[in-house]
Amino acid sequence: MTVLSSIFAASDDVRDVDLSKVHNLSGPVAVEGAEPGDCLVVDILDVVPFEKMPWGYTGIFELENGGGLFAREFKSRACKAIWDIHGIYASSRHIPGVRFAGVSHPGLIGTAPSAELLATWNKREGALIEAHANAVPPVAFAPNPTGAHVGQDLPDDVREKIGKEGARTIPGREHGGNCDIKNLSRGSRCYFPVFVKGANLSVGDLHFSQGDGEAGIITFKTSIIKGGVEKFALKQPIFVPSPIDPLYSQKLVFEGISVDYHGDGKQYNMDATVAYKQAALNAIAYLMKASRLVVLAIVRKSIRFCLELTIKHMRLAREQAYLLLSAAPVESHVGAVVDSPNACVTLAIPTGIFDHDIMPKEEGLKKLDFGQCAIRSDGVL
Amino acid sequence: MTVLSSIFAASDDVRDVDLSKVHNLSGPVAVEGAEPGDCLVVDILDVVPFEKMPWGYTGIFELENGGGLFAREFKSRACKAIWDIHGIYASSRHIPGVRFAGVSHPGLIGTAPSAELLATWNKREGALIEAHANAVPPVAFAPNPTGAHVGQDLPDDVREKIGKEGARTIPGREHGGNCDIKNLSRGSRCYFPVFVKGANLSVGDLHFSQGDGEAGIITFKTSIIKGGVEKFALKQPIFVPSPIDPLYSQKLVFEGISVDYHGDGKQYNMDATVAYKQAALNAIAYLMKASRLVVLAIVRKSIRFCLELTIKHMRLAREQAYLLLSAAPVESHVGAVVDSPNACVTLAIPTGIFDHDIMPKEEGLKKLDFGQCAIRSDGVL
Amino acid sequence: MTVLSSIFAASDDVRDVDLSKVHNLSGPVAVEGAEPGDCLVVDILDVVPFEKMPWGYTGIFELENGGGLFAREFKSRACKAIWDIHGIYASSRHIPGVRFAGVSHPGLIGTAPSAELLATWNKREGALIEAHANAVPPVAFAPNPTGAHVGQDLPDDVREKIGKEGARTIPGREHGGNCDIKNLSRGSRCYFPVFVKGANLSVGDLHFSQGDGEAGIITFKTSIIKGGVEKFALKQPIFVPSPIDPLYSQKLVFEGISVDYHGDGKQYNMDATVAYKQAALNAIAYLMKASRLVVLAIVRKSIRFCLELTIKHMRLAREQAYLLLSAAPVESHVGAVVDSPNACVTLAIPTGIFDHDIMPKEEGLKKLDFGQCAIRSDGVL
Amino acid sequence: MTVLSSIFAASDDVRDVDLSKVHNLSGPVAVEGAEPGDCLVVDILDVVPFEKMPWGYTGIFELENGGGLFAREFKSRACKAIWDIHGIYASSRHIPGVRFAGVSHPGLIGTAPSAELLATWNKREGALIEAHANAVPPVAFAPNPTGAHVGQDLPDDVREKIGKEGARTIPGREHGGNCDIKNLSRGSRCYFPVFVKGANLSVGDLHFSQGDGEAGIITFKTSIIKGGVEKFALKQPIFVPSPIDPLYSQKLVFEGISVDYHGDGKQYNMDATVAYKQAALNAIAYLMKASRLVVLAIVRKSIRFCLELTIKHMRLAREQAYLLLSAAPVESHVGAVVDSPNACVTLAIPTGIFDHDIMPKEEGLKKLDFGQCAIRSDGVL
Repeated sequence: MTVLSSIFAASDDVRDVDLSKVHNLSGPVAVEGAEPGDCLVVDILDVVPFEKMPWGYTGIFELENGGGLFAREFKSRACKAIWDIHGIYASSRHIPGVRFAGVSHPGLIGTAPSAELLATWNKREGALIEAHANAVPPVAFAPNPTGAHVGQDLPDDVREKIGKEGARTIPGREHGGNCDIKNLSRGSRCYFPVFVKGANLSVGDLHFSQGDGEAGIITFKTSIIKGGVEKFALKQPIFVPSPIDPLYSQKLVFEGISVDYHGDGKQYNMDATVAYKQAALNAIAYLMKASRLVVLAIVRKSIRFCLELTIKHMRLAREQAYLLLSAAPVESHVGAVVDSPNACVTLAIPTGIFDHDIMPKEEGLKKLDFGQCAIRSDGVL
Repeated sequence: MTVLSSIFAASDDVRDVDLSKVHNLSGPVAVEGAEPGDCLVVDILDVVPFEKMPWGYTGIFELENGGGLFAREFKSRACKAIWDIHGIYASSRHIPGVRFAGVSHPGLIGTAPSAELLATWNKREGALIEAHANAVPPVAFAPNPTGAHVGQDLPDDVREKIGKEGARTIPGREHGGNCDIKNLSRGSRCYFPVFVKGANLSVGDLHFSQGDGEAGIITFKTSIIKGGVEKFALKQPIFVPSPIDPLYSQKLVFEGISVDYHGDGKQYNMDATVAYKQAALNAIAYLMKASRLVVLAIVRKSIRFCLELTIKHMRLAREQAYLLLSAAPVESHVGAVVDSPNACVTLAIPTGIFDHDIMPKEEGLKKLDFGQCAIRSDGVL
Repeated sequence: MTVLSSIFAASDDVRDVDLSKVHNLSGPVAVEGAEPGDCLVVDILDVVPFEKMPWGYTGIFELENGGGLFAREFKSRACKAIWDIHGIYASSRHIPGVRFAGVSHPGLIGTAPSAELLATWNKREGALIEAHANAVPPVAFAPNPTGAHVGQDLPDDVREKIGKEGARTIPGREHGGNCDIKNLSRGSRCYFPVFVKGANLSVGDLHFSQGDGEAGIITFKTSIIKGGVEKFALKQPIFVPSPIDPLYSQKLVFEGISVDYHGDGKQYNMDATVAYKQAALNAIAYLMKASRLVVLAIVRKSIRFCLELTIKHMRLAREQAYLLLSAAPVESHVGAVVDSPNACVTLAIPTGIFDHDIMPKEEGLKKLDFGQCAIRSDGVL
Repeated sequence: MTVLSSIFAASDDVRDVDLSKVHNLSGPVAVEGAEPGDCLVVDILDVVPFEKMPWGYTGIFELENGGGLFAREFKSRACKAIWDIHGIYASSRHIPGVRFAGVSHPGLIGTAPSAELLATWNKREGALIEAHANAVPPVAFAPNPTGAHVGQDLPDDVREKIGKEGARTIPGREHGGNCDIKNLSRGSRCYFPVFVKGANLSVGDLHFSQGDGEAGIITFKTSIIKGGVEKFALKQPIFVPSPIDPLYSQKLVFEGISVDYHGDGKQYNMDATVAYKQAALNAIAYLMKASRLVVLAIVRKSIRFCLELTIKHMRLAREQAYLLLSAAPVESHVGAVVDSPNACVTLAIPTGIFDHDIMPKEEGLKKLDFGQCAIRSDGVL
């Protein structure tokens, strides 16, 4: 899992990311013989980065430019870490002391919706948008021709219709879509419901780990189980994970409950999203205890400014921890959602991805040098 | 994980379960030398059922008597399955064809809150109760002397004060508590924040698996890390899972998003609890495809009634699947909570716990005989 | 695996261990309905130490009193380590810095041989003994009434016959027997060939880990597959390991080939036993690099003696490493036995059983204090 | 592990394989700064098949042309199976019903020996050859200019000297070499002793699984630990396996002891190689029970011939099982080598690599169609 992940182009200044380019898709691919009600079986045989582009990014968006689950907690000064891919491993110049095996997977894979299903999506999401009209960031995205990338050979009126009615591919839905499930990785077998003749499979948003290689090659093969939607009661895809997902048996687990104790302390009613956020913020706080702040080698004119610099850096280490959770093979479990009012969610960090021991010790945590991550350089930092 | 779990006494009629007896606790145990701000390290060395009571229960509560996450979906005609414990395994006469290794753990373990922390709890939960004054089931439980089991030797006024001010132990909170985390199992090492002198550790609600043995023996040892709350930024306990948690590598994974498509179809905004529910309901629907309905050997007077009987039985198989998810070592991951508006949550069922192959097949699913689970016998069913 | 394990009584002086008491058995238990040619299915449901005796031993025998695979390498001054059992874990006052989860299992479990099979055993082992008439330790053990523990109620002539003809239970054979397979652990399902009416299952030599708790309780249940010997081509038992065998994903692996480079340097022809020994001796040499020698707090009269003392202690640390390999969940794989003349065998040590980091580091290995293990105190050491 | 593997060119007739071409090596590569006594750290970052040659072979050699561990048991009519590689998986037209994730690794990787070490090798292996002068197949291979492939640019006298003195690369030795250890796979970190300036690392014999892709690309990086041979007591390389080795938790385990009960019944003295062979032959016998014989669609002239044909086919199914063990991620453990006279070795087959259930069942084993494997077609079969 990672809820934290987002990705943007490799520009030096991360303020101006064009969200419409966040993920590229290939498809749709029609599978001969697939009919509505069938089940499309997809074997994800491999996902590899482009040989000549062995790197990826993890990023934090500005609140006004996409945001993210922690947009408010991090007040989102946009920020990123670059990951270098070495064979099966990723490491980052921006988050030293960490190396992990990738769980390479398509962030987005899914069949095409029928006209009826598409109408359902637009209606229910439209109602949500209406109910939160001025939300920043927006709660959902209505069909919008701007930035809609569709087939180049289509007649203009068809392209226009798609832009006006087609669902944006940001969220996952009943057909699969942008679910960003890390365990839907190379080696997995997935079972998709078929809604239209030919199934029309699309795939993209390839991740090396949950952090994003964004560009790469996926190999899959397909087969069809006739009438599979009924046979398997498919409301949404199901899948069998890969036998080669990385195995790190030792984990350090953080808990969270549905009380926003990292924020205003409010009690929520069995809210697993709030509980997830606390678990992640607990993990980030822990990792900050295990990181040494780097003082920038910039001479400034006053003591006051140096203090401010230090404080800002503290924020940086926090952002590095956040970026790490976005990219590494951490796991978040829904522990309990029955004991009112507190849902309990856990987040497990594999200790084997660190060069050094990060386990709790009598003497406290060994400070790791997490270096300095790349941030916007608008004259202040 | 299981959000579905709940437990009650082994009476034949499950309508009258006394919720105040849902879990028994031992403690508090004072640990010499522990001071507020320290970290209490607890090694859970073993959790075993009572030798002479090798069984447990999983149940579904009535909506009006506790309910549960799926209280409305199941319209909660109370229902239970009895699990027989054979060494490391559990199996149930009520859910044939299934055997799994237990992940034995305390559902509840935690240190005592300070007076300040207790006041915070009561205040924030009180506000939630006020905001949902007439909810059925209630959204939270205020302090209440009725059914408060406290030390027998205390003076009356102290007992009275505890009943009036003590937090009920139903939800987990910052001290740990009733988090029902299955991986906090025998062999785990846990790190608790200490809020009062002596730490005052309590433990109980022992589960064999997430389904409940309720009664059994836990062995642990404790040590103290001075100043651990600051050293490890502890807002809530952290832990290291056991090396002997059952390993079933092959899993069948179900997805869910934050749309209530099993209910009224409403779109929620990044709500992981709703997404969890859809994943669980998808799994239950799948398991129902893999179960054969049992026709009761009861002669009734009319055709109409027989049809009704069949329909009711279909509900029974559904309840068996629900009970199974409550007890078996299934895992629910928070897949993604960043792609607005849909959180994506997965639920993974280990296929190795079934006697028969439950994987999706061209020919559909092999029907397992799930038998008949125990329900109330009030003259109708 | 452990080839190194052996066990003896808890006497202070380990020179006089009576080898005939090395393992105690329970049985034979007849299973109703089992006939020759059937397959007896045994579910090992649990193996637990006696509640009041939560400890075990690992030992090294004298060359003249049983010896062992490394009898010559260690010149076998008898030596032992005591393991204290804490729930699922074992640790030893004699090998500090180590704690591991047990893989509790019966060292010996098997059905009774038929008269013909017994005759085959006695004949083939007799031929081996004849061919190595004066070997020390002996290469095998012929039937011998001395120390043969059989049912108390048998007529004298039957007891005598058993003593004279019954195979000693030291080695494993086609019926199972003393195979000391650590993964035949609690939770395993085993399939035994049946040679006599009733199968006559015996079990004993219970180990907490491969090191020995020797005494404890095993729970199992049996069923029969008619004609299973033919159905499954059973020449020897087969089994399915337990889902709760300890999982330590990070391992440090040592290699060995069939050259006795720790001894006289001789080249053997594809000999996996020699290769195993080199891998184990490589692991022991590594662990010695990670251990600090303890200087005994004994005042002696001359410098010369002190030097000798140090050298002897070095030997002690080596014996501690040897004892550790005997008890911990290490794994030895047959890597290759095709590339003449060198078989290649590996031995993997789970790093997670150590308190400290034992991985290879630029700065060399951190020295662990392995303390002092218990040895005979005959005036010299 | 697999002891069974060997590989040859994709010719239709497998009788004439040139053993000197069994594995191709790249190297030696000098690493700047490496000195004798240092430790060379090699990260195996990835091993992938050639993009345009996604296939490999597993074969059985003729007794007179290389043989193998089972040369006599199989009377070695040379035989092969072709594996098609689909992303992370391999399957074979010759062994239907099986698909497994590869454990891609270099069969051969090692540093160069010093002149002294080379002399030791030649001396000790020469002694073995002398002691078994007329063995078929030979027990070892002395230096031999025929088929020695060395650098093209070397002066003739150097090339001649290498051919006359250089050790053949068939067996693994103290420097690593052709150890064929499947878990030395992509993602592993290995520590090699350095014997000469520059270390001179060679690598080759790339396997997709233990069966052989033979040709492919390996990516690694190196670093040096000064004085590592002494620091880590390196007699032979040590390594840390990859976190992405395939995980199949359910296994069916076969046992073997050091009695040749599949042959002449002789008792060996604690011989793990003999025990390994029995375990493998037990597994093969079991798999034959799970395979359906294919009757060739060839019309022959007499009944007698048809019977012979059937018998020969039975042999074929046995060879398919043998080839499968050579290629799939099976594991062989040294269970016990202390209980004289029987070493106990186990061989575990992951059940998840089969399309169908191969577990022991009351009703016997479901017959899988293992088809027909490719054999020589010299007029007889």
